[in-house]
Amino acid sequence: MPRAVREQQMLDAAVRTFGQRGYRAASMDEIAELAGVSKPLVYLYLNSKEDLFTACIRREAKALTTAVRAGVDPELPADRQLWEGLRAFFTHTAQNPDAWAVLHLQARTHGEPFAAEVAAMREEMVAFVTGLILVAARDARRDPSLPEREVAGLAEALVGAAEALAAWANATPGITARQAAATLMNFAWSGLGDLMEGRPWAPPSEEV
Amino acid sequence: MPRAVREQQMLDAAVRTFGQRGYRAASMDEIAELAGVSKPLVYLYLNSKEDLFTACIRREAKALTTAVRAGVDPELPADRQLWEGLRAFFTHTAQNPDAWAVLHLQARTHGEPFAAEVAAMREEMVAFVTGLILVAARDARRDPSLPEREVAGLAEALVGAAEALAAWANATPGITARQAAATLMNFAWSGLGDLMEGRPWAPPSEEV
Repeated sequence: MPRAVREQQMLDAAVRTFGQRGYRAASMDEIAELAGVSKPLVYLYLNSKEDLFTACIRREAKALTTAVRAGVDPELPADRQLWEGLRAFFTHTAQNPDAWAVLHLQARTHGEPFAAEVAAMREEMVAFVTGLILVAARDARRDPSLPEREVAGLAEALVGAAEALAAWANATPGITARQAAATLMNFAWSGLGDLMEGRPWAPPSEEV
Repeated sequence: MPRAVREQQMLDAAVRTFGQRGYRAASMDEIAELAGVSKPLVYLYLNSKEDLFTACIRREAKALTTAVRAGVDPELPADRQLWEGLRAFFTHTAQNPDAWAVLHLQARTHGEPFAAEVAAMREEMVAFVTGLILVAARDARRDPSLPEREVAGLAEALVGAAEALAAWANATPGITARQAAATLMNFAWSGLGDLMEGRPWAPPSEEV
């Protein structure tokens, strides 16, 4: 079996083990066994537990940002782009709960080098959302009335809300990715004021 | 000097040192020196670096939740309550940046026992915001049209957004607590849709 394939199998086993048992409790024996390889081979290919964990974070951060970008059609109106992006995000985190636990909990909880890897992913997400908000402002054909700082703050708030909601959705039985995305879309697009007045954001009718 | 006073001085020094240098890099020598006491006295009173850090997290979590609760007048309409709560939150995190670094970054980054302390504070905040959203729904005199799960999700999203924005505001020169609160209030109350259409939430005129 080629090395690249073996490595992906090791990373699959590592993400599952780190996500379910936590970084400290996870053992290299367990990961090797789950991957169906010998422990020395894991060390030969991925060097150390720290390097293996870093490789997991990088692979899963890339998979998540790729999924979100792929879910968004830049030709759509801004609210549709945001809706599609949120659906892609919550679908990915729901389908890959171990990967999300690695990114959102484990990587932040075990020291600065890992936290820095996640911070880079977060910055990419914030930049992407900033772009969406600027598209929305342009679509609304307004003067550049939202100052740059305001847009940066709004993007930070939206990404923070999405992270918190993904953790909550994965920990709450029965919450689907679509429900989580709809909750956040309503919050982000219509705001609590409109929600209270019975004016939620509505998904396009063909997919209700 | 009474023990209780000495302990608070040690905690002041510890929050500052942990917040600015990080949990691992902070030394007990440094903390004792900053507090103006001997290192053995710190150990005598607070037992270990772990226990000292835990005491910092507990004290600062309580100070933050107390500040937010004290900022909110339950007689006001829901949007005013939310605005006052957000102002109190961002004022406290701006005035106590080391405490916020301990709670938001350090406590989550150095293992599960500390992360669990912060999770308890977060739950209290989510419960408080859930109450505010229910008040808003009642004020709008609507049927209980927001299902309980939707409210729980909205509260998670709002708290996640506030956490992210506080970290951003403290790291971005020139962002005031009032600006951060106004950005989040606009996002949470009016939503991006209304913002784009030029319908922001407006603070009550007497304080513009």
